[in-house]
Amino acid sequence: VTGPVRVRDAGEFGLIAALNAVLPPSVQANERVILGIGDDAAIWVPASGMTSVITTDTLIEGNHFRLDWTDWQSLGHKMLAVNLSDIASMGAKPVLATITLALTGDEYVADLEGLYRGAAALAEPHEVAMAGGDVVRTTGPMVLSVTVVGEGEPLLRRDGARPGDRVVVSGTLGASAAGLRLLERPEIGSGAATADLLVGAHLRPNPRIAPGKVLADFGATAAMDLSDGLLGDLPKMLAASGVAAHLDSRLVPVIPAVRALFPDDWLDFALRGGEDYELLATVPPDALEEIQHEAARVGATLTEIGEIVSRHDGHPMLMVTDAEGVTKAVFEGAFDHFS
Amino acid sequence: VTGPVRVRDAGEFGLIAALNAVLPPSVQANERVILGIGDDAAIWVPASGMTSVITTDTLIEGNHFRLDWTDWQSLGHKMLAVNLSDIASMGAKPVLATITLALTGDEYVADLEGLYRGAAALAEPHEVAMAGGDVVRTTGPMVLSVTVVGEGEPLLRRDGARPGDRVVVSGTLGASAAGLRLLERPEIGSGAATADLLVGAHLRPNPRIAPGKVLADFGATAAMDLSDGLLGDLPKMLAASGVAAHLDSRLVPVIPAVRALFPDDWLDFALRGGEDYELLATVPPDALEEIQHEAARVGATLTEIGEIVSRHDGHPMLMVTDAEGVTKAVFEGAFDHFS
Repeated sequence: VTGPVRVRDAGEFGLIAALNAVLPPSVQANERVILGIGDDAAIWVPASGMTSVITTDTLIEGNHFRLDWTDWQSLGHKMLAVNLSDIASMGAKPVLATITLALTGDEYVADLEGLYRGAAALAEPHEVAMAGGDVVRTTGPMVLSVTVVGEGEPLLRRDGARPGDRVVVSGTLGASAAGLRLLERPEIGSGAATADLLVGAHLRPNPRIAPGKVLADFGATAAMDLSDGLLGDLPKMLAASGVAAHLDSRLVPVIPAVRALFPDDWLDFALRGGEDYELLATVPPDALEEIQHEAARVGATLTEIGEIVSRHDGHPMLMVTDAEGVTKAVFEGAFDHFS
Repeated sequence: VTGPVRVRDAGEFGLIAALNAVLPPSVQANERVILGIGDDAAIWVPASGMTSVITTDTLIEGNHFRLDWTDWQSLGHKMLAVNLSDIASMGAKPVLATITLALTGDEYVADLEGLYRGAAALAEPHEVAMAGGDVVRTTGPMVLSVTVVGEGEPLLRRDGARPGDRVVVSGTLGASAAGLRLLERPEIGSGAATADLLVGAHLRPNPRIAPGKVLADFGATAAMDLSDGLLGDLPKMLAASGVAAHLDSRLVPVIPAVRALFPDDWLDFALRGGEDYELLATVPPDALEEIQHEAARVGATLTEIGEIVSRHDGHPMLMVTDAEGVTKAVFEGAFDHFS
């Protein structure tokens, strides 16, 4: 028998050995993560004076990804990136990841090696060890479940926004939603040199570790990452902080490629499109200039898009100024994955 | 509309609020775990001078559990217990757990509250915070994925066994496999007062945190937990440590209820049955008596069942003395979940 090996033929231990073998040594373990894959648990040495954080995020085939839309390395990048983004939103530095794969057995080992290569290519520059996990058998869709531990001091929560703070967002919004639309309807982007850029924004989001650390170190009051869209996620921060906000949609940063390919939908993508994995944060006005300067030093932009105001009973939590300069209440809540 | 509420009607946020509400305050957060459910990540304060451990284990409906065999509280107990068992096997103390539920939406919220109650009832006495997680939608079988962080110093790995060490096991073996057989064939246990005890051993295993800590503190050289059966798991320890072993099956502790209900299978259950979640450890001979004494002080037994010997090329890694006193090589490897 020749040809690619399926999981059921490699067996659980053959698969684990093959996946471990594609990880660079520095991703298997390092001076902080002293025991990785192969024992009952991974071991690491906490840095003294640091607080630790943990997050977990799961991708399910057919719901969170489609194998006809993504290559395996991009999928490996994304399953780690969405977790690193949660660590970034706390202003922390990631230390290690554990990965659980629920598989039917029909998958090819080489594809899963590609998945691990994609994750390792993101883990390595961030000095993240892929230190263990679990491989289990399922009859249903493939499940990729990742947990990441990080450390930092101070850390940013989503409940610290205060009236007068400026609302800032990292990078640009809407490119991921535009990329998803191009995957659904590729004819829209045919011939456009920017189509690959937008699809790449959807398939391989960049976790904003460095600007997250800048926000924590230079006085931001709250932060979270944007996975469910600006108008879905900002209300969560406002509710946790007990405040209201005024957004000016004319200030929301959107790249020209999104506006050019989607002249009718670009603002909707920027406000309601999900999976940008940019950071949303609140910054006291007297800290804004320094934070933007420090963000630029790590290659990031932080754009002011609004202001936190006091909440009053009976008044809307979120007011948004539209493209015509008209300010309206927005009652939109968070995207619900079941309702 | 009255009656029990399904997940799709409660919505993601309604479900998360309902699940958080069933946790006692000390399980939501404590002086070490300062931020739990509701932000991008949970935050805890590492104890100075400690090393940290992390483990993750996933249960899939139809493969790892059947809803017609377990109640929801037992399932919640077990999903946490199998992870705490990995922490116990390192000699560490668990600190927090994150829980990911992959659901179709047809589940009843009240059942998932029962799942959380069962987990919380185990978390509380072990001072474990259930500090976050993820709820995602799936079209396939229910997936329960748990990650637990712990701390300890010193810690036990599975690669430290040395020739001359005694092989010990905590508690008794085979009750879980016997309980599983009774679930498959309830007519065997009908009328037996001990049937509930054996089924309970399968559905609600006890993680051996306290004896794990005793093993680490009083000089054990290696440890692991028994999830795939003694003859499946011991070879993993021997391979990691580069040693061989001689087991005397006549010394393996088995409760009378297993022998009475399964006169033909009890030894097979004890040697090859999985999911006992007892600890397998190696102890230098001069430390054995004190370790057994200290284990008794925390209500645990550690029974000597064999000895570690040097490995020689061409010789078997594992020799087992059977019930008739005959010693034979055992070539059985670990249970493979795909092959």
